[in-house]
Amino acid sequence: MSAEIICVGTELLLGDILNTNVQFLAKELASLGIPHFYQTVVGDNFTRLQNVIKIASQRASILVFTGGLGPTPDDLTTETIAQVFETPLVEHPEIIRDISQKLAAQGRTMADNNRKQALLPKGAGILPNPSGTAPGLLWQPRPNLTLITFPGVPSEMKRMWRETAVSYLKSQGWGKEIIYSRMLYFRGIRESDLSAKLAHFFELSNPTVAPYTSLGEVRLRISAKTRSKTEAIALIEPITQKIKKIAGLDYYGSDDDTLALVVGNLLRQAGETASVAESCTGGGLGAMFTTVPGSSDYFIGGIIAYKNQVKIDLLGVNSKDLEQSGAVSEVVAQQMSLGVKKRLGTSWGISITGIAGPGEGTEIKPVGLVYVGLADNQGRVESFKCQFGAIHDRDTIRFLSSYAALDRLRRRLLLNN
Amino acid sequence: MSAEIICVGTELLLGDILNTNVQFLAKELASLGIPHFYQTVVGDNFTRLQNVIKIASQRASILVFTGGLGPTPDDLTTETIAQVFETPLVEHPEIIRDISQKLAAQGRTMADNNRKQALLPKGAGILPNPSGTAPGLLWQPRPNLTLITFPGVPSEMKRMWRETAVSYLKSQGWGKEIIYSRMLYFRGIRESDLSAKLAHFFELSNPTVAPYTSLGEVRLRISAKTRSKTEAIALIEPITQKIKKIAGLDYYGSDDDTLALVVGNLLRQAGETASVAESCTGGGLGAMFTTVPGSSDYFIGGIIAYKNQVKIDLLGVNSKDLEQSGAVSEVVAQQMSLGVKKRLGTSWGISITGIAGPGEGTEIKPVGLVYVGLADNQGRVESFKCQFGAIHDRDTIRFLSSYAALDRLRRRLLLNN
Repeated sequence: MSAEIICVGTELLLGDILNTNVQFLAKELASLGIPHFYQTVVGDNFTRLQNVIKIASQRASILVFTGGLGPTPDDLTTETIAQVFETPLVEHPEIIRDISQKLAAQGRTMADNNRKQALLPKGAGILPNPSGTAPGLLWQPRPNLTLITFPGVPSEMKRMWRETAVSYLKSQGWGKEIIYSRMLYFRGIRESDLSAKLAHFFELSNPTVAPYTSLGEVRLRISAKTRSKTEAIALIEPITQKIKKIAGLDYYGSDDDTLALVVGNLLRQAGETASVAESCTGGGLGAMFTTVPGSSDYFIGGIIAYKNQVKIDLLGVNSKDLEQSGAVSEVVAQQMSLGVKKRLGTSWGISITGIAGPGEGTEIKPVGLVYVGLADNQGRVESFKCQFGAIHDRDTIRFLSSYAALDRLRRRLLLNN
Repeated sequence: MSAEIICVGTELLLGDILNTNVQFLAKELASLGIPHFYQTVVGDNFTRLQNVIKIASQRASILVFTGGLGPTPDDLTTETIAQVFETPLVEHPEIIRDISQKLAAQGRTMADNNRKQALLPKGAGILPNPSGTAPGLLWQPRPNLTLITFPGVPSEMKRMWRETAVSYLKSQGWGKEIIYSRMLYFRGIRESDLSAKLAHFFELSNPTVAPYTSLGEVRLRISAKTRSKTEAIALIEPITQKIKKIAGLDYYGSDDDTLALVVGNLLRQAGETASVAESCTGGGLGAMFTTVPGSSDYFIGGIIAYKNQVKIDLLGVNSKDLEQSGAVSEVVAQQMSLGVKKRLGTSWGISITGIAGPGEGTEIKPVGLVYVGLADNQGRVESFKCQFGAIHDRDTIRFLSSYAALDRLRRRLLLNN
């Protein structure tokens, strides 16, 4: 038993988009213990898609499709599948109803071309799409061959995968040996340094431990191959504990944890609140804090002080200091954090001021220079300097700045409590 | 004449890495005017790689390989190619010399397994690798079939592509025709509605016009196949003009334009400034405005009023209105936009208040309900309601909210000027 991933879309052949869907599906299949040996990308072309389906159905027993489920004439996946397995298409009134309702909820009416999305090969099941109009199908056109289709929009595909496909695949008894993994997240240490500290873990065979570098952090994947999740956790847990001990404060979370979630939980536990004062990030730190549902328990708000006058007027930054040291300086970062903390009456005030570039840097203050300020409710204020370097682009420097600010708050909260 | 891209590596099947190589090669082939109809990914497995090469060599005339050129036993690309075309491998002393020199420059000596990298099928040419040890090959094992191999390391592959492969492909007289494309972006219209309006364009054969749905917008790609970029633009330009006329205000930009950039340029042209007041987006709209370098010309700053008290204290929202209508209401959206405009002294104040979910919605105010307020410098204030629906997740609703606010400002700026 093995799977094959088939991605349909001329935009992939033209290089217009990066195929992130295939990586997601590859990881997911691996974690279910379903091996797959081939990935194929083909354009919106009936004959070639037919060719791909014929080849794949000879060498794999589960075909996972993405793309080609839209309402336009060049969306061909469903009808090509029907054609290959010589099965007529039938219209599903329940899909029509579902599409109309979804469009109505957005104040829209159904177009004629949406009707096409209600057609499935006779005998195929519907794979519901909670976030879009195009449902997928789940079909065994012959014994030992299962087809599953997803739209190409990544958010829709992922949600359908998680909410429907996973339980189906598990219920089929595929993947008797599962691969179960835990991801651990680290901040403030380079991959090579963490790897040097943890070298002996990389020689383990079950579970295996492998490092990955991700933007602004390092990740470790601990994977166990066992017959059950319980057995896997029993193998993974003691290794996790050892690694956490070695990494200390550099470890911040695992699996579904995000840095914003971890910081939020620490604030909530401490009964404390936070506000932000942002210059170069323009609201990105506030946006990061509020990715977490329920963040209003501890996140109060902030001031986006993009221009200096706002720093003076709303945050009480001293205009002389601004003039003498410049907006990107320790003293201004500190005053911004104190200012927002005072103005919004929060336990913590966190500020960011920096040069995100491109093209605003000088020799003394190069692109990638960022100061983060942190004022606490004991009247203390600190600031620290980050030098992300001009090798990064504007978006990356802004992301890394917000991420560094959140992480500093995390460390302070852990040391305070 | 068409190509096929074959990526070799078990790490791609495990989803450990994102396949950026294939997107690079896809774009490059398109820009050379060499069509490719299939992309295949296969693991480090002799039999399956053999199978892939056999299939590809029946349907394509240029096979472009990445991966599997390293020194370890699971690097199998070269020897599998030799096997498929029943050709012996021969050692190239010049490759051995090159590898030894490169390793010596790093203070290393050549290992036994590096010798493997000097083996190529008899008759194959060397594709030099300036930045790594593994060279590629360039080989016609039979008439009308050319194989080119690259290592999987993206930086090495790209440099080899640019420095050697491109000139070779051009010298073969392939790619006399180039494919040149323009992307057009639309807001506020569904793909199916835009498609209905533009249906007759989709039947064109050169240039071709095809729609794509993207989060919060629709895109059209206009592609021309010609002998030069100038000729392509001459074909694309009149179609672009016709489509822009039909789409009216729903068209917002093309190619490298972003909505934030377009809005920023309109503000700059008008000599006007903007500030933001954000509740559910928590800073995301400010962050979106400031993705544009130089946005300080027109973006002043904002207030993140996540909690109601901040709306009252800093934005002057009336506490009775807040109590009676709730934070997510027309009246509060309007007051927020007026408040931030006044406080920061800008031409425009843009506000967002809504329910991003999950789990905060009610029947009257469901998840996905968002109000955007817009105050202008003639004392006018308006607000509008978005219903993104609970089908979207929190991040998506927040993104769509900021995007809708920016787009409303764009339309107002276009109508005002």
